[in-house]
Amino acid sequence: MPSLTPLNQLLRVDTIVAGGLVVTMDEQRRVIADGAVAIAAGQIVAVGKREQVEASYRADERIDAVGRTVIPGLINGHAHLPMTLFRGLADDQDLDDWLQHTIFPAEAMNVDEAFVRCGTRLGVAELIRGGITTVCDMYYYEMAVAEELAAAGLRGLLGQVLIDFPAPDAADHAAAMACLARFVDRWQGHPLITPAIAPHAPYTVADDHLIEAQAFAVDRASPLIIHLSETNHEVQESLRLKGARPVEHLARIGLLSDRMVAAHVVWAEAHELDLLRDHGVGVVHNPQSNMKLASGVAPLPGMLARDLAVGLGTDGSGSNNDLSIWEEIDTAAKLHKLISGDPTMVSALEAFEMATIRGARALHLDAQIGSLEVGKRADLVVLEMEAINQIPLSSIYSALVYTSKASDVCDVLVEGQVLLRQRQLKTLNNAAIEAEALLFRRQIIERLGLVP
Amino acid sequence: MPSLTPLNQLLRVDTIVAGGLVVTMDEQRRVIADGAVAIAAGQIVAVGKREQVEASYRADERIDAVGRTVIPGLINGHAHLPMTLFRGLADDQDLDDWLQHTIFPAEAMNVDEAFVRCGTRLGVAELIRGGITTVCDMYYYEMAVAEELAAAGLRGLLGQVLIDFPAPDAADHAAAMACLARFVDRWQGHPLITPAIAPHAPYTVADDHLIEAQAFAVDRASPLIIHLSETNHEVQESLRLKGARPVEHLARIGLLSDRMVAAHVVWAEAHELDLLRDHGVGVVHNPQSNMKLASGVAPLPGMLARDLAVGLGTDGSGSNNDLSIWEEIDTAAKLHKLISGDPTMVSALEAFEMATIRGARALHLDAQIGSLEVGKRADLVVLEMEAINQIPLSSIYSALVYTSKASDVCDVLVEGQVLLRQRQLKTLNNAAIEAEALLFRRQIIERLGLVP
Repeated sequence: MPSLTPLNQLLRVDTIVAGGLVVTMDEQRRVIADGAVAIAAGQIVAVGKREQVEASYRADERIDAVGRTVIPGLINGHAHLPMTLFRGLADDQDLDDWLQHTIFPAEAMNVDEAFVRCGTRLGVAELIRGGITTVCDMYYYEMAVAEELAAAGLRGLLGQVLIDFPAPDAADHAAAMACLARFVDRWQGHPLITPAIAPHAPYTVADDHLIEAQAFAVDRASPLIIHLSETNHEVQESLRLKGARPVEHLARIGLLSDRMVAAHVVWAEAHELDLLRDHGVGVVHNPQSNMKLASGVAPLPGMLARDLAVGLGTDGSGSNNDLSIWEEIDTAAKLHKLISGDPTMVSALEAFEMATIRGARALHLDAQIGSLEVGKRADLVVLEMEAINQIPLSSIYSALVYTSKASDVCDVLVEGQVLLRQRQLKTLNNAAIEAEALLFRRQIIERLGLVP
Repeated sequence: MPSLTPLNQLLRVDTIVAGGLVVTMDEQRRVIADGAVAIAAGQIVAVGKREQVEASYRADERIDAVGRTVIPGLINGHAHLPMTLFRGLADDQDLDDWLQHTIFPAEAMNVDEAFVRCGTRLGVAELIRGGITTVCDMYYYEMAVAEELAAAGLRGLLGQVLIDFPAPDAADHAAAMACLARFVDRWQGHPLITPAIAPHAPYTVADDHLIEAQAFAVDRASPLIIHLSETNHEVQESLRLKGARPVEHLARIGLLSDRMVAAHVVWAEAHELDLLRDHGVGVVHNPQSNMKLASGVAPLPGMLARDLAVGLGTDGSGSNNDLSIWEEIDTAAKLHKLISGDPTMVSALEAFEMATIRGARALHLDAQIGSLEVGKRADLVVLEMEAINQIPLSSIYSALVYTSKASDVCDVLVEGQVLLRQRQLKTLNNAAIEAEALLFRRQIIERLGLVP
């Protein structure tokens, strides 16, 4: 029953998103018809029936969600945003050709701070338009990535890459560690940015540097992001050189922990999944990237059976080639049905969980994000549900997973700030980003000697 | 060099689509920068550089494609349009549960002519918005499907279903054959509609009825559409009951021919692919449906190696759950890289061919559609290339396959008629279709006793 509080006694909040179907992804997986979410100081202060919320709160700004669906902001658990500028640069190639003859030369010839800023802005614009409110990124010049995300108002778990060869932003290991320390010190405690250390992979970073990275992460209480067991080749080389599979090896040298976010984990056996679960490692599954690069199929059913913290990622646009998490959700649900031969495997609800609450667990951010609950940060998305591709609606999770698209996203809020309103970017200049990206494209093509 | 023909001596045409990158998919796979396509009486009369086309032709209507890409209309080679009303009705279920406990009862309780009309209009609206200009459909009441397509201006290869149990539109086989004859007689020779006979599958139609269907198809010179080798179960039952695999069996009873369009062909061995090629059978690959229903992976690399006429289809929205051929193109390219373990397998160009010229061959319509060439029917799509998900453009085929979406489609012409202009449907009433679909949704849910 609505309260009879007089208007002037209503609690004042910043924003109410009102009407529509509110898909909370809370522990009971409540779905509230004609619901509302009240937001104050970047936090969710009420979630419930519209009538009840509006009977207790009065907002400066009201976002009408009637006929729409309100969902927690989606989480893209693995990206390399600056590489958005390499979109489509080298497709359908052998992995070795792709890395050695296109991506590495392209990076050596192009990646500087200005490139990173432009690619990040381009990527962030696509993320926001697609309803992604948190991204886990790893690249060079991550200080610039963080500045761009903070300026656009997007949430990020951002890892400065550590790799055992000269990087665009650090000539040697000592310089890389110094750069990393500056990065983490600058951003720790920021409401949107969680700085992290990102040793590239066990096969590109020596054990002593991995152990040093882990000590750094423990010392600063910061997350550690890593590529792990992406290809069978990586596993075989690890066995040959270290006498252990990558997950086993990391366990042995003390790297597995509940601060780790491990991308891919395609080639992992049952006992390795047990190790990841026992150490509280977060895992990010990138189904489309793994398909396109022919890396293999991650053992997702085994991960879910262990209740592993597993999220979804797009990977970089140099490989995948876009940043739509909707297509990863859809692909995750379908791919594991095919591979297991079981059409009941990875239900729509389970797939959607990976992009929301389970994905938040994978980034160790589930106390703050991943569901619409009182006390969590106000990261949410209003989705049109009357697009021709969604009519008629039979099951909300089916609609979210199998028919909704990035183009159905209407409004996006992060930390209570409106980043997209009626499909218009509010914190970024779309035209300027596109113009600048086209200039870089010309530069990339010229420097690589490609035919445009 | 532009001709100096005075304005009043220019050849008059109906429409010129001018500017932009014209991706012809002709034999040389010409891609024309700043190109144009001239259209008269539903036919393409010129394709070339804009300057040259505009120097020879003068149009009543000019469609500006500057900064955009002009492609042949896309072909959806397998659909069940009326089932769009069953979208999301029963996902993540065992195939037997899905068919026996949801789809068959849902069809028995709901499918009548009004249902078919509403579902078809809903599906056609989604097809047009997504840049599909030709659809191959098979269902009941196909006469109504044909009327709806013709009214909307969409091209269709439409098969009236023949099945050995009572159908919504025919109580027995004799009634079904009579209904079929009326259907084919009514539509043969229509500029948009090619009527066909569609025996449902070798396991649901007895041999004598298949042979009768084939005789009918030969007699009327009409295509024959069939589901073929979709699941391993089907193959095993065929071996058990008939002593031959489905393709072998159809070869044996004389059904394979260059009038056949076979959907799925997931479980086919090398010698069966040879049989299909030798008989000129068209094949339609439905990667997402096959994934979602855990049917298996069609041997696409083997089909392409044999230069088989293979197209792409979405299958019905009861299973897949939308009608975006863009996602099928993208999935086809990625899935076969994964399964073959070879990232060079099914290039972007090869994937795009399946939705255009090779898909036209699969429907035996390649003399009319599938490429932008003088003499072909004027079915084409203008695509926005400045969406945030497409910037920057490196390779046109990469962009078309890996980053373009249904939402990037701006304008659609079929037989020279504008069906979509600046993303607005011109021959259908979007709001009326959606309202009517919601009424049927309520009916379906009530009749099946589902919780809405």
